[in-house]
Amino acid sequence: MAAECPSRDVLRRLTGRWGMLVLRVLSDGPQRFSGLRRQIGGISERMLAQTLQGLEADGMVLRRDFQTVPPHVEYALTPLGHEAATRVDTLLGWIEDTLPQIAQGWAQA
Amino acid sequence: MAAECPSRDVLRRLTGRWGMLVLRVLSDGPQRFSGLRRQIGGISERMLAQTLQGLEADGMVLRRDFQTVPPHVEYALTPLGHEAATRVDTLLGWIEDTLPQIAQGWAQA
Repeated sequence: MAAECPSRDVLRRLTGRWGMLVLRVLSDGPQRFSGLRRQIGGISERMLAQTLQGLEADGMVLRRDFQTVPPHVEYALTPLGHEAATRVDTLLGWIEDTLPQIAQGWAQA
Repeated sequence: MAAECPSRDVLRRLTGRWGMLVLRVLSDGPQRFSGLRRQIGGISERMLAQTLQGLEADGMVLRRDFQTVPPHVEYALTPLGHEAATRVDTLLGWIEDTLPQIAQGWAQA
């Protein structure tokens, strides 16, 4: 529970807006940078690159460079990334299912 | 997955630094404001009040005022709050268990 625990950073990268969306899209299979940008509306090149770097550093995403000309680079979830994606999806799915009930409280407030 | 979906705000309140800690402490039973502050190191009065208000508005936390003099107010998880706490704990527990493996990657980078 310590504030300075590095698990906080991992949690932030996994549940942050873009990290979550990247996990979701990659759950369906590897993607190129351009494919990710297309599927994740509103993300800038810079934010996507940064998000991928964070997830890569945490061992959630693998960057595969096929060393071809023109370059072909793909991003894929690692087994760890799949485990993370499942758990984030469980939480997000629960929030989405519960949202009508939660929003009822907002309306009454 | 839409950026403007209000589920994002709920997720942020649940996985944010303070929200998570409040959920964890209240999982063990109701607490007064002062008890929460004592158990959650480093949180300011303002941040705790704001966190509790957010969780209350989302229907996760119930504020009980016993209408006594001197005032006695307690905060407790609602059934919804317990459900949320379980799921957040699952994700956090997984990150904590996996952290040595994740940190290994950091060291190699």
